[in-house]
Amino acid sequence: MRYQLYYWPTIQGRGEFIRLALEEAGADYDDVARGSVHNAMGMPALMHLLDSDQLEYPPFAPPFLKAGDRIIGQTANILLFLGPRLGLVPEDETSRLWAHQLQLTIADLLTEVHDSHHPIASGLYYKDQKPEALRRAQDFTATRLPKFLGYFERILARNGGDGYLLGDALSYVDLSLFQIIAGLCHAFPRTMKALAPAHPRLMALHRRVAARPRIAAYLASGRRLSFNQQGIFRHYAELDR
Amino acid sequence: MRYQLYYWPTIQGRGEFIRLALEEAGADYDDVARGSVHNAMGMPALMHLLDSDQLEYPPFAPPFLKAGDRIIGQTANILLFLGPRLGLVPEDETSRLWAHQLQLTIADLLTEVHDSHHPIASGLYYKDQKPEALRRAQDFTATRLPKFLGYFERILARNGGDGYLLGDALSYVDLSLFQIIAGLCHAFPRTMKALAPAHPRLMALHRRVAARPRIAAYLASGRRLSFNQQGIFRHYAELDR
Repeated sequence: MRYQLYYWPTIQGRGEFIRLALEEAGADYDDVARGSVHNAMGMPALMHLLDSDQLEYPPFAPPFLKAGDRIIGQTANILLFLGPRLGLVPEDETSRLWAHQLQLTIADLLTEVHDSHHPIASGLYYKDQKPEALRRAQDFTATRLPKFLGYFERILARNGGDGYLLGDALSYVDLSLFQIIAGLCHAFPRTMKALAPAHPRLMALHRRVAARPRIAAYLASGRRLSFNQQGIFRHYAELDR
Repeated sequence: MRYQLYYWPTIQGRGEFIRLALEEAGADYDDVARGSVHNAMGMPALMHLLDSDQLEYPPFAPPFLKAGDRIIGQTANILLFLGPRLGLVPEDETSRLWAHQLQLTIADLLTEVHDSHHPIASGLYYKDQKPEALRRAQDFTATRLPKFLGYFERILARNGGDGYLLGDALSYVDLSLFQIIAGLCHAFPRTMKALAPAHPRLMALHRRVAARPRIAAYLASGRRLSFNQQGIFRHYAELDR
């Protein structure tokens, strides 16, 4: 099965959680909006599906995944679908629900990261909501972020500390948590430097995932977009106290 | 199977999406935190599990569901688990993923409803973030809410308009969308009066779900908490222009 991932071509964003799973599994996939219009890809192909009124299961927003005739939306739902197919989650229902529960908690954290620089409207620029962002980012870094990181650190500690979130084997949730830590270290370097000593297992998980051969190759490749000021993880020094 | 739902005892909140599914199915369940401490329920029972470091699958926050020995967290994940067991979603994987995709989009909308009155910090009072809430609610009612409602209206229209989101049969997603419309009509009556004519199928779905015998009985019972100013759907006239 060759998959087609549809996501904005210039940012890591929510699409990155899907890319990391596909890359770790060595799956065949097209990152459609980054492809060439000469190959029926590029942004027109994304917008064509997003604007279509002919789809049986229309997505609300990117990312969405095409798998044969199926189109599946919502990041965590795509990973729920892909996880068993890519060998990135155990077979039993209990493990799959637990992985998904953790993924949804990661999704909640990600929304709060986004809103730390866009607390008023995603349709406005950061500069148009900067005073509000200063307030929200202060609460995020002081209260919400430590609560989320503490939760994941405790889960890793309970597993012995040198394993993965679900136990001894890597799952797609570890790839997503890697991305969260990478993004936080980019966006909030001062905050993360302060929080790192209390979360050694999270930081070690980040390094362990980054060192996996396929992930290391992906991160070093042109397929990995850089963090930038259009994505979810943005570095504004004034928000990182 | 008798289920135990753990959620804050004084608000509808995210727990209401689980309550509606259990009620429609006529399931046996305890709304634990609303029970008596003499029956080992009440808030102490909720806090005991939430603070425990002995759980194999610890939830990040309420709601969570106990089903025998299992504890499952995250609202959409609980419905993913309950849906097939309560007969509230078709059996095939495609339908279940589609239902879950819609549920996650409802969850995204719900977060935006919450942030319309709490754009800075959930730990602060509304009165401490009122200027920011005025800005965020303006964008929410003018831009984000119509985008979400338009999406669900189109899905209902495509199904013929007098059915449910997945087709002819009710699913847990319809119950959740009912709750969204009910909450929006409470929190934003002026906005919803203006939006209703363009979304007749959503408004009809709301009425159709409310008239289902078990849902009607539930809504008329003491088990249904009222909307209030501590929940997600709050009526502040100044936010509803």
